[in-house]
Amino acid sequence: MTDNETEIRDVLEAKAAALAAGDVKTMLSYYTPDAVRFTLAPPLRQETDAHDTAPVEQWVATFEAPPVRETIRLAIAASGDVAFATGITSMTAVPKGSTKSFTLWHRTTVGLRRVDGRWLVAHEHDSVPFEMDGSLRASVNLRP
Amino acid sequence: MTDNETEIRDVLEAKAAALAAGDVKTMLSYYTPDAVRFTLAPPLRQETDAHDTAPVEQWVATFEAPPVRETIRLAIAASGDVAFATGITSMTAVPKGSTKSFTLWHRTTVGLRRVDGRWLVAHEHDSVPFEMDGSLRASVNLRP
Repeated sequence: MTDNETEIRDVLEAKAAALAAGDVKTMLSYYTPDAVRFTLAPPLRQETDAHDTAPVEQWVATFEAPPVRETIRLAIAASGDVAFATGITSMTAVPKGSTKSFTLWHRTTVGLRRVDGRWLVAHEHDSVPFEMDGSLRASVNLRP
Repeated sequence: MTDNETEIRDVLEAKAAALAAGDVKTMLSYYTPDAVRFTLAPPLRQETDAHDTAPVEQWVATFEAPPVRETIRLAIAASGDVAFATGITSMTAVPKGSTKSFTLWHRTTVGLRRVDGRWLVAHEHDSVPFEMDGSLRASVNLRP
């Protein structure tokens, strides 16, 4: 791994660790304020300030504890001040009021910019595919 | 727009034009052979050779004519030999055997590398979000 790749992997891991600790403010400090976010849930594109903690805290509050995310097959391309990373992510959580955890595997793409020497997430795209069998169901049970 | 941004926009438009013309081989010439592809349909990640025309031609054959894709809100970040682009794409097509076209709006992220002076798609991530209301339906009716 190059220095850039190591730094970017560390940013992505620190961001996931902050979420797992329920520290939304620290998690969002790894994003640019104008980050373009394509999330698992609608709308097509989030238009809020990426540093606004309220929507993320509301989402975290729908679980018994903050979700735990782990990314495998991480691949990073970096040059100058721009990078992108791809991987397959598992999100494990217990819905509020339940005692049973679920694990959702999804695709993750992250676009990064180096700002004042620090790599920040300028774009994030999380998704699952959907079934083309006429059901139009989200493919939430896939395994890598 | 910088020269890089103009070149990348041209690559993405040429790729869409090749698809609309049914010229799958030319369309795939804009990808690296090992491009990481997260498509609208399963699996989580396509594992075939990105230059293999057969799967794409099979997909195109499910329509009366090749699908027409247009991307709006295109934003490009490029530095050195790495870039990423984000946008919202409309795909319009008529399913085989039907007379009625549909338009599907989805999110598009593209990761690019400059190889021998030419920008190529090294990663593509297309998706719609899904409904978190318990239905787990893909959100195929969203408009930007």
